[in-house]
Parts: sequence; C-alpha cells; structure tokens
Amino acid sequence: MARILTLTLNPALDLTVRLPRLEPGEVNRSETMLTHAAGKGVNVAQVLADLGHQVTVGGFLGEDNPQAFEALIASRGFGDAFVRVPGETRSNIKIAEYDGRVTDINAPGPWVGEQAQKELLKSVEAIGLEFDAVVVAGSLPNGVSPQWFQGLLETLKNLGLKVALDTSGEALRAGLKAGPWLVKPNTEELAEALGHCADAVSQLHQQGVEHVVVSDGAAGVSWFSPGRALHATPPKVSVASTVGAGDSLLAGMLHGLLSGDTPEQTLRRATAIAAMAVTQIGFGISDDAQLAHLQSGVDVRTLTEQ
Amino acid sequence: MARILTLTLNPALDLTVRLPRLEPGEVNRSETMLTHAAGKGVNVAQVLADLGHQVTVGGFLGEDNPQAFEALIASRGFGDAFVRVPGETRSNIKIAEYDGRVTDINAPGPWVGEQAQKELLKSVEAIGLEFDAVVVAGSLPNGVSPQWFQGLLETLKNLGLKVALDTSGEALRAGLKAGPWLVKPNTEELAEALGHCADAVSQLHQQGVEHVVVSDGAAGVSWFSPGRALHATPPKVSVASTVGAGDSLLAGMLHGLLSGDTPEQTLRRATAIAAMAVTQIGFGISDDAQLAHLQSGVDVRTLTEQ
Repeated sequence: MARILTLTLNPALDLTVRLPRLEPGEVNRSETMLTHAAGKGVNVAQVLADLGHQVTVGGFLGEDNPQAFEALIASRGFGDAFVRVPGETRSNIKIAEYDGRVTDINAPGPWVGEQAQKELLKSVEAIGLEFDAVVVAGSLPNGVSPQWFQGLLETLKNLGLKVALDTSGEALRAGLKAGPWLVKPNTEELAEALGHCADAVSQLHQQGVEHVVVSDGAAGVSWFSPGRALHATPPKVSVASTVGAGDSLLAGMLHGLLSGDTPEQTLRRATAIAAMAVTQIGFGISDDAQLAHLQSGVDVRTLTEQ
Repeated sequence: MARILTLTLNPALDLTVRLPRLEPGEVNRSETMLTHAAGKGVNVAQVLADLGHQVTVGGFLGEDNPQAFEALIASRGFGDAFVRVPGETRSNIKIAEYDGRVTDINAPGPWVGEQAQKELLKSVEAIGLEFDAVVVAGSLPNGVSPQWFQGLLETLKNLGLKVALDTSGEALRAGLKAGPWLVKPNTEELAEALGHCADAVSQLHQQGVEHVVVSDGAAGVSWFSPGRALHATPPKVSVASTVGAGDSLLAGMLHGLLSGDTPEQTLRRATAIAAMAVTQIGFGISDDAQLAHLQSGVDVRTLTEQ
C-alpha cells in the first residue's frame, strides 16, 4: 500500500442528466439528474482507494458548495488537503441521450487568487513528505498561471515526490518543463503540447520525464520508459461511458509502479482497469472477477525501437 | 403592505449557462454559470417583496443543498416555512446561446414522502392565520398526488386565506376543484386543463374561482372576475428573457387586489411588471421610472361579454 496525494486545481461537480433526446431550443425533461464530486485527481483518488492505497485529495474547492466533496472525502476515508476559495466549484453538465450521445458543457470555475495559491504551496510543503507519490491532474482554474503551475510541480519534485501529471494544453507544456516522473497524455494532448514530431517521447525523456504513458482510446496504451516501450490493446468491450477511463488508467499505472509489479503486469492491469471503467456509467473496481477476465484479454507487446 | 405566504412544492436551483452555440454531442465550454434559488413561488415572493409586502416562503426543500435558498431567504428577510426532505433540490438547467435561443432541461426533483407532506400541512395550519393570502405555485414533486394537493388547497381556503394558484396539467385540474380565489394559467395551460370550451371561464367561476387571469405572452393578459372582463396589451419590449414573467404578473395582480387598487390600475401595473421582467435576464422591480414608463404603455380595455 502506497501513500498518495492527488491534487485537482479545478475540480467540478459532475451534473449528469439523462433524457431520451436533447431538443435544442425546447423545454426538455430529464428522467434523472445525478450530482457527484469529480475532477481528474478526485477520480484517480477513488480508483487508487479501490486498489488499497491510502489517499489524500487536495487542490482548490469553492467554499459555497463543498458538500458533495466533503461527503465523498468522509465516505472514502480520504485526507482533505483542499484549500477553500471564495465562490462555487463549477458544475460540468453531461447530457446523456438514449442513443449514447453525450453533450458536455464545462464551466470555467471560480477565481483562485494569489493568497489561495500561496496557501496550497505551503500546505504541500508541510505534508509532502508523508507521501510516496503525487498526482496532479486536470485543468488550471482562473487566476492560476502556467508558470505558477510549473513552480508547483518543481516544489513537489524537490520534496522527493514521484510526480504524475495529467493535464493538457498550456498547463501540460508548462508542467513538462518541471520534468515530472510520469505523464499520461492522450494522443491529441501529446500532439497539441509537442507537435507531431517523431521524437516527442525521447524529447520528454531528455527533459527528465521517466514514464510517458500515451492513451489512444480503444486502440490502447503505449508506455515509453528509458530502454523499454510497450503497447497494450484492451479487449473489445461495450461502451457505457468513457468518463473516468483515463483517470483509471493513471491510477492503474501508479498502482503497478508503486507496488513493484513487472512492467508487463503493470500495463496489463492498468489497461484492464481503464477498459472496466468504459463498461460502467461510473468507474472504479466494482468486480474483481470481471477485472481478472478483462486483464486476461489485454494484449501486451513490445514496441520496436524507432 | 400585505402578509403573504408562497408555497413552492417543487423548487429548483436554476443553473444558467451561457455559450456561443450549443453543439450537441460535443464538449462545449460555457463562459459563465450562475446558480440561483428558483421555483415559481420563490420568484413570486421576490417580486412581492420588491412591492413592499412581507413574505414567507415554504414548500419542500432538499436537505442536501439548501444553501442557495437559505442565502436568498436571509438576504430578502423572508420567513422560512420550507419543510426539509431527504436528497437534493433539483437543478433546472438553462442553456442560453448568443442568438437568444434557450434550451431548458428540467429534472424531476426529490421524492417527497408522506411524513413530509403531513409536516407541511401541520405547518400551514399553525401559521396560516398570520397571512392575508397564499400563493401556491409550480409543479408537484415525486410522491405528491393531485388529490393531496387538492386537500392542501382546501385546508388553506378553510383557514380563510385568499388562495392564488399557478400550476399546470393534473395539478391544475386537481387544484381547481378546491375553488381557489385566483388562478393564473397561460392559454395553453387553461386549454390543457379544461379543453378548448368557450365556457371555461364561467365554469371556473361556478367552481368558486373568483379571479381567472389568463396570460398569452406578448398578446397580453385577460382577467375575468364575476361581472367584469378586462384585457391588457403590454407595450412592445425587446425580449432579454421570459424567465419570471408569469411569476411577476401573478405578484402584480396580488399586489393590486390586496392593496385595494382599481381593477384597471391592478391589471395595468401587473402587466407592466411582467413586461419589465421580459426586458431583463432576471426579473423584479429594479427601476421605478422604467416601470412607470411601461405602465403608461399598457393598453387596458373591457372585453365584451360573450
């Protein structure tokens, strides 16, 4: 069991509504509406807890609507390292139609001022040594610059923490400069951050990034570490929802790496955990037998050197 | 100044998102997301307070997310007669696009059990005599039958309260059987409840309904009371949002009737308050001079007997 901190700087309340068909411009009636605490780091934390790890969640949380997060933290036994900021944590609306189409509407979230940024840095400096690894995941809130974000990652790295980064765009570009231990972009995020250059991965390794895990949906996962390149193809599954699949992959990779599993076993299990997320409306390890079955269906092979 | 109770059995958090264009099936990014406490009775209460009345709000409120309602109640100085029920008050999502198109997604709301229904009845029996009138507005939550709703209205009427009803469908049909003092359907709601019969209004008068106020959007408002039928046409205004327009009309009618204004003045002002709501993203009496200007533009005429 490892001790892991996950930081979500811009968490969200996921508000999922389900209806037969979205009719723009009309009054639609949804059958169900579910609110739950979300955000990449919060999702990763839940899968890590399912895998038996001891997790603390942190980042910035709007002080006007923390209830869903506080309830999750209490029920999962997480440590709470969230800095409260004025205003409301944003809601991300997911509109799910019967035919499987999902429309997302993502809000910008509250303003995070300098004072709160200082408070988070101070907090991670105070508690950082208690952890084996830290996951920093998701987008940057209003008020937080890519430069500050790079500094946060450098602080975490200087504390001796294994830093796993999952973000995109400018935040990813800035974060990569800090040379995190592991990054998990999908193919689009990687191309956006580094361009379509053939040596993107060796460029990252040169920057000090040890593990580059690139997800490509149903096509599988490639994992590049110095001297080793593996690719895993998941078994075909029927897709219920891809929500949390990337977060599940990241949690699975951390689990294998921190537990000292073989690389092949690490990637196989992580890929199966992500595939399992896809078969559910939510995510998480709800059924060990199903996970074992999915694991046996993952095809892992060594990528030839380029 | 009158003392007025408004009951909203199925209130909602209005969650308004604004974006350039809604793209179904895609990840949309909204510029702003605003949450506020809403529901017809809660809206009516705010306009009544703007008009100088002393208001208590009640109904059923989900105990997991009462913050926005409690903040509104505190800031407006309302009495709080809401019965808390397990779960979350629903969110009604309004997606506003740049071209003015609005897509609504309305959720069903929490289950309201027998115990909570009994508690509300007991509460209104205990406090009912403190009020001059009661507004019962909006839809029925899950668990509340039209029969129980009719009984609630009868209880209120038997307490000697002037009962103003604003609902639709089955709830309106059931509520009308209680013979409320005033009803405010729009033309579609009236037709749905009573069919397109020419004698709908006299049928209602025979059932004991004294004031039938029928709204028809920009075409205006018809008000039928025994021996008098008036029609008001609002001035043309540019439409910002029709949210709260019907609630504003109802508040304006109550204001005039409880203040002893002339029928012509009552209808003129109520129509102007509704028109003012249409010119705003929100509603309420924000500008007395604008209200006076709109009032002077309302055309009130007597309808000929049929």
